[in-house]
Amino acid sequence: MEKIQVALLGLGTVGKGVYRTLQKLNKRIEEKLGVSIEVTTILVKHPEKHRNFEGNHLITTDFQHILDNPEIKLVLEAIVGVEPAYSYLAKSIKAKKHVITANKAMFAHHGKELLALAEDYHVQVGFEATTAGGIPIIQTIRKLLHVNQIRQVTAILNGTSNYILTEMREKKIPFKQALYQAQQLGYAELDPTNDIEGFDAFFKLMILSELIFHEQPAWSNVDRIGIKDITLRELLEQQECGKRIKHLASLQLIDEQIRASIIPVSIPATHPLYSIEGVDNGIVLETDLVGRIILAGPGAGAFPTASAMLEDLAIILRSLHQSTITVSQELINSTT
Amino acid sequence: MEKIQVALLGLGTVGKGVYRTLQKLNKRIEEKLGVSIEVTTILVKHPEKHRNFEGNHLITTDFQHILDNPEIKLVLEAIVGVEPAYSYLAKSIKAKKHVITANKAMFAHHGKELLALAEDYHVQVGFEATTAGGIPIIQTIRKLLHVNQIRQVTAILNGTSNYILTEMREKKIPFKQALYQAQQLGYAELDPTNDIEGFDAFFKLMILSELIFHEQPAWSNVDRIGIKDITLRELLEQQECGKRIKHLASLQLIDEQIRASIIPVSIPATHPLYSIEGVDNGIVLETDLVGRIILAGPGAGAFPTASAMLEDLAIILRSLHQSTITVSQELINSTT
Repeated sequence: MEKIQVALLGLGTVGKGVYRTLQKLNKRIEEKLGVSIEVTTILVKHPEKHRNFEGNHLITTDFQHILDNPEIKLVLEAIVGVEPAYSYLAKSIKAKKHVITANKAMFAHHGKELLALAEDYHVQVGFEATTAGGIPIIQTIRKLLHVNQIRQVTAILNGTSNYILTEMREKKIPFKQALYQAQQLGYAELDPTNDIEGFDAFFKLMILSELIFHEQPAWSNVDRIGIKDITLRELLEQQECGKRIKHLASLQLIDEQIRASIIPVSIPATHPLYSIEGVDNGIVLETDLVGRIILAGPGAGAFPTASAMLEDLAIILRSLHQSTITVSQELINSTT
Repeated sequence: MEKIQVALLGLGTVGKGVYRTLQKLNKRIEEKLGVSIEVTTILVKHPEKHRNFEGNHLITTDFQHILDNPEIKLVLEAIVGVEPAYSYLAKSIKAKKHVITANKAMFAHHGKELLALAEDYHVQVGFEATTAGGIPIIQTIRKLLHVNQIRQVTAILNGTSNYILTEMREKKIPFKQALYQAQQLGYAELDPTNDIEGFDAFFKLMILSELIFHEQPAWSNVDRIGIKDITLRELLEQQECGKRIKHLASLQLIDEQIRASIIPVSIPATHPLYSIEGVDNGIVLETDLVGRIILAGPGAGAFPTASAMLEDLAIILRSLHQSTITVSQELINSTT
């Protein structure tokens, strides 16, 4: 069976999830894709942390190792932050390696450049895992856009803040206690700013804007209000009126201008995102032909994110495989 | 610009919807796909009905016209019933034409044969429009299955019966009145058996079973109970307990056996299909890696169905185009 050598950048929660999923599902992937995926090199910052990480791979702190290895055809990126992730992926693409990323901050900043670069170098970029975790929103939007125009997106894109709001309302606890709980469960980081101030949702929304409208609004024009000032009292008052406060990300084209916001909104029970609770994400797409499509599911977590990255991997491998079949077919046709 | 000649089989609600959508979106499709789609031939049963149907195409009652025309590369099928639809598509595939169908009864019976035939003849079969209208469920399941195992499906797959149950409960009207309303609005046919007895949902569920488990359960083992015996009183009693009766299609693998049913079930407000109302469809997929994914949206209607068929068309055209690019690239590489 053909072996595809893959490098993994980063061995945090997502990186480990991808690695373990690949190990666990090796057989399944081989059966479904007809190739064997081997993570041969893992890039980490602090190798001393990973001394006990088992597996048949090289752990390195030197990206050049990966870049110079022509056998590595694909790079899975699971680093946090814009740099050095962006530079690594740009270099990988120039070395004709396909790339798959789960890094929303990086992709919101540089997705456009990476996609353009990938076109020049005839490789592919997978970014399903950047937005809404395991929910296949990127591929779904791509598919709908073949025929539909998408006019509006309304979404819950951050599982942590949705979890906090749900817990506050259901358990009647204040913000701080719900945040602490989220941290204990690993949903929120020690510094929860990214989640509770809406930066995480903001980056995801910018990625959706780029995908749908081929551009992003000026970042300074995007209203962004976090959830930390929402009181238990407000939540319960809204509940009495049959409403729930949700941290909504929305995107809309008004007079050819993209309007985007990430703000707390009180929504009635008839709203399709009313029932999206806990760490789930939900996305409502308003399209001109199909009408309103709703997707919901786990918005984060190592396995959903790993699954999204591996689905991208499968799509890239299939498209290479399909091309090969067609090439052979063309050759057969041309010689008969 | 390259022109792709297409034949349309059937000029009922769906057929007309596809034709009009193609006319209306001609520019958009040309921009997005880089080719021009032309419906050159339409197969109908009663040409006298369509004398006033405007457009630059041949209307024929003779399928052989389409089959013998080598310029027609793709057949869009929007006929009702298993035959002659199946024979037409099988012949089309053997004539090396791609096919796209919206015909669930036909595809539940013969999908497997058509897909196998298409593999032999190196053409593609699109069937997104057979199941859940505008909701891209087929492509989503395909994508998830690259990596995930799907363990269970629970769904509302028939918009007409969901509309009837919603209207009965909301307007406090009996079944017959809600059915009459659905017929007046064009949601239900004069003979509503297919919808209200669950046959329509049954065929869709069998298509999903084939896609997910690569086989269907013995049809006689599938529990199928329609909605016509549900009384207003039952609906209101359930409502008092915070529940709603929904016509649920479900699919599950238990001890390597596929269990399938289409039956009315009373579900609580926490169930993800509780809020799927009116003509909408909803599908809950339980997967092993991603967890629970929910999709919802318009389950029927000419434009959503047309959109699903045209999305299939776009995917087929793109894959042909992509192969061509790769072929050119391979040739460039091999000569430099």
